[in-house]
Amino acid sequence: MDEQISSSPSFSFGDESFSPQSRDELVRAVADALAEGRQEDVHALVVPLHYSDGARLFERLNAEQRRLLIDIMRFEFDAEILCDLDPAVREDVVACLGFADLAAAVRELDSDDAVHLVGHLNDDERERVLAALPLEDRTMITQGLSYPEYTAGRLMQRELVAVPAYWTVGQTIDYLRESPNLPEDFYDIYVVDPRHRPAGKVALNRLLRARRPVRLREILDLAVQSIAVTMDQEDVAVLFREHDLVSGPVVDRSGRLVGVITVDDVVDVIDKEAADDMLRLGGVAEPDLYRAVIGTVRSRFTWLLVNLGTAVLVSMVIGMFDGTIKQIVTLAVLMPIVASTGGNAGTQTMTVAVRALATRELTAGNALRVLGKEILVGCLNGVIFSAIIGTVTWIRFGTLEISFIIAAAMVINIVCAALAGLLVPLGFDRIKVDPAVASPVFVTAVTDVIGFFAFLSLATFLLL
Amino acid sequence: MDEQISSSPSFSFGDESFSPQSRDELVRAVADALAEGRQEDVHALVVPLHYSDGARLFERLNAEQRRLLIDIMRFEFDAEILCDLDPAVREDVVACLGFADLAAAVRELDSDDAVHLVGHLNDDERERVLAALPLEDRTMITQGLSYPEYTAGRLMQRELVAVPAYWTVGQTIDYLRESPNLPEDFYDIYVVDPRHRPAGKVALNRLLRARRPVRLREILDLAVQSIAVTMDQEDVAVLFREHDLVSGPVVDRSGRLVGVITVDDVVDVIDKEAADDMLRLGGVAEPDLYRAVIGTVRSRFTWLLVNLGTAVLVSMVIGMFDGTIKQIVTLAVLMPIVASTGGNAGTQTMTVAVRALATRELTAGNALRVLGKEILVGCLNGVIFSAIIGTVTWIRFGTLEISFIIAAAMVINIVCAALAGLLVPLGFDRIKVDPAVASPVFVTAVTDVIGFFAFLSLATFLLL
Repeated sequence: MDEQISSSPSFSFGDESFSPQSRDELVRAVADALAEGRQEDVHALVVPLHYSDGARLFERLNAEQRRLLIDIMRFEFDAEILCDLDPAVREDVVACLGFADLAAAVRELDSDDAVHLVGHLNDDERERVLAALPLEDRTMITQGLSYPEYTAGRLMQRELVAVPAYWTVGQTIDYLRESPNLPEDFYDIYVVDPRHRPAGKVALNRLLRARRPVRLREILDLAVQSIAVTMDQEDVAVLFREHDLVSGPVVDRSGRLVGVITVDDVVDVIDKEAADDMLRLGGVAEPDLYRAVIGTVRSRFTWLLVNLGTAVLVSMVIGMFDGTIKQIVTLAVLMPIVASTGGNAGTQTMTVAVRALATRELTAGNALRVLGKEILVGCLNGVIFSAIIGTVTWIRFGTLEISFIIAAAMVINIVCAALAGLLVPLGFDRIKVDPAVASPVFVTAVTDVIGFFAFLSLATFLLL
Repeated sequence: MDEQISSSPSFSFGDESFSPQSRDELVRAVADALAEGRQEDVHALVVPLHYSDGARLFERLNAEQRRLLIDIMRFEFDAEILCDLDPAVREDVVACLGFADLAAAVRELDSDDAVHLVGHLNDDERERVLAALPLEDRTMITQGLSYPEYTAGRLMQRELVAVPAYWTVGQTIDYLRESPNLPEDFYDIYVVDPRHRPAGKVALNRLLRARRPVRLREILDLAVQSIAVTMDQEDVAVLFREHDLVSGPVVDRSGRLVGVITVDDVVDVIDKEAADDMLRLGGVAEPDLYRAVIGTVRSRFTWLLVNLGTAVLVSMVIGMFDGTIKQIVTLAVLMPIVASTGGNAGTQTMTVAVRALATRELTAGNALRVLGKEILVGCLNGVIFSAIIGTVTWIRFGTLEISFIIAAAMVINIVCAALAGLLVPLGFDRIKVDPAVASPVFVTAVTDVIGFFAFLSLATFLLL
């Protein structure tokens, strides 16, 4: 028994031997074997891998190595690898694989994975893969693709176990033992009414604990929330996370059970949504670790250009005061401090707001209360930091006037930063624009413009 | 059947009626009922709630409302609400609840939740709650707390189903039907060897599909990775997410099965780790939506102070060139553009790097390749943006010299930004400091200092 385990192909996730190292080693071993044409070694290394480890491997290899590896693995290529790949690498692998093998791979997948994969092909590729599939699979995938992206309809798999409430535990177990086309994995059995609407679910461990003559309706969990096919995947994620679900029933407009979403897909959504928000706040449209140089330049270009636009705007604001600066150069030395501190305060509030919007914790019902709090926090931080910077300025330059001006500008900018940090994401959310994408540039523009303007205009007004 | 369902207490997650609205309504209804002293209405509204909805409700109420609500719910207080609460609100609720009721609540929890909850109390509270618990629970919790925070030992629950491989399916099912103390929920049965080391697992759906005389060893899934009790929870999360696990066995140093981690806990970890990285990159140490004003000011203060320090440093760099600025004020007008664009480029690279470190995609094995790519991306973006800003400057001010200087400073700063954006997080990760916390201030300092210095020193050198 023990030998069987240690011969298990997966990595060891023990204390000292976590994956980054072992993954690096695997990549090196495969790359060496590919370079030296040791096909059997490649085979022995790659075929037993879990598909996610296979996907990570493909992501690490270069284009030439990927092509070689696919040629060797062709007939044992695990289709699930394709679903798990970074999009940039997937394009590359799909191109190497060719349509016949791609279609064969799609047929092996569960319905949700197949829809996911085909949904990511470009139009031409999609046509050709669909054409290569048997009618039944084609219909199933086309139907799945008819749901909008990022909805429950796209996440769900059609394979599920649904039985009537009057069945006994024994009957259900016998059915499971005999039924040839059950889903590959399932955690709950759905009980449906005669019109195929979900009436509750029975977790498998409840089923196993009950005695054979017990009827399902006696052990049924009624507190089951149906998920509409059109529900946004972020809402699905919140539901699963908050209610600790492992599976949930998806219903169409008429309330009929049409599919089931399982927690493994939701885990990916949670991870991806959180990561996307983080990347977007950092000015990156999409994860681009595996993108080629040109693709990466292109994906980061827009954000830099928009920001350059606001930087030029800010420079125009400063230009309004060039006469003042010429007379008092100290202003040029100090002015970035006000803008920078305001920008940081605004980013703090904005980050909290974007996160709270994503988790549905910030709603119309508490926006006013949060706004009041953020203004108070801004006032307090404004007072503290204006005292600090006023003192520093006074020590450094010895002029009380400029110390007062920078302190006043600091209070104004930090309070405005708090307002912008909250209202900008709320506003974008209200008009259904992703606040993580759109907010940073606006918040920074506000805090830069107000920071420089408040400082330089106060100086012009009071010193000249 | 249908009536039973529509009377289900949970919110409807249907198409048009998603929770933010219904949650706002619930909060209002409970607040009104509390204000008007309608205890029975409060009861009817709150007791049937799922614990996560109860937690969200508590988070939304103010301190006085929370106290009233706890008085009404005291004997039906769902202990799981405590585990799900925001830390700031939990402190408040724990204080209202008192130690006797808190201890009673802890006893109702699964071992992982009990350890989690007690682990978040302060030392004095912890002592008193532990003292109020029966010996068995006390021992179990103390043992759980002996594992370091954020490790698998803290996440796992001790309740699990472990059976020998020679058992038949029938024997196992009979055992499940008769055993009085099974975990509340479970998805897999663990097969252990005589020394209680995990030898594989049987998903419940496999058990249900197999016939009674089949031995477990015939349907056993051998590719099960054991999780060391000391494994970092982020690594646990990566393992679950990549391998689509619903549960995983936790083993001690000698390889004995001591607990099991279930996906619902991992979902919370994934969500929290991603959110924490995002908040930290935005300069927020912890989610503070429900913190009081003073607590929020305090939690955001450090970051603002550190950034003020770098802003003062930057201002000193500018101060080195005040003579140059006095002669050519245009430099003061243009200088923030170089720093700002560099800062954005650096933030892009840093965000990608922090994310890739968190998902273990960026390792020693590919750091050099990624570095090469980021430098290339920086060079290309640098050339593009220096061309743009050079042209804009030339059009606006008509001086070829300054256009050339700003273009040159831009290339230098964007390339340095790419270097800093990658090397700073890598460096912090190498010395085991959280790159999300420490990187932003360093990256911005680098891009600001280099941006202003390159621009102003080139100007001083070439124009004066």
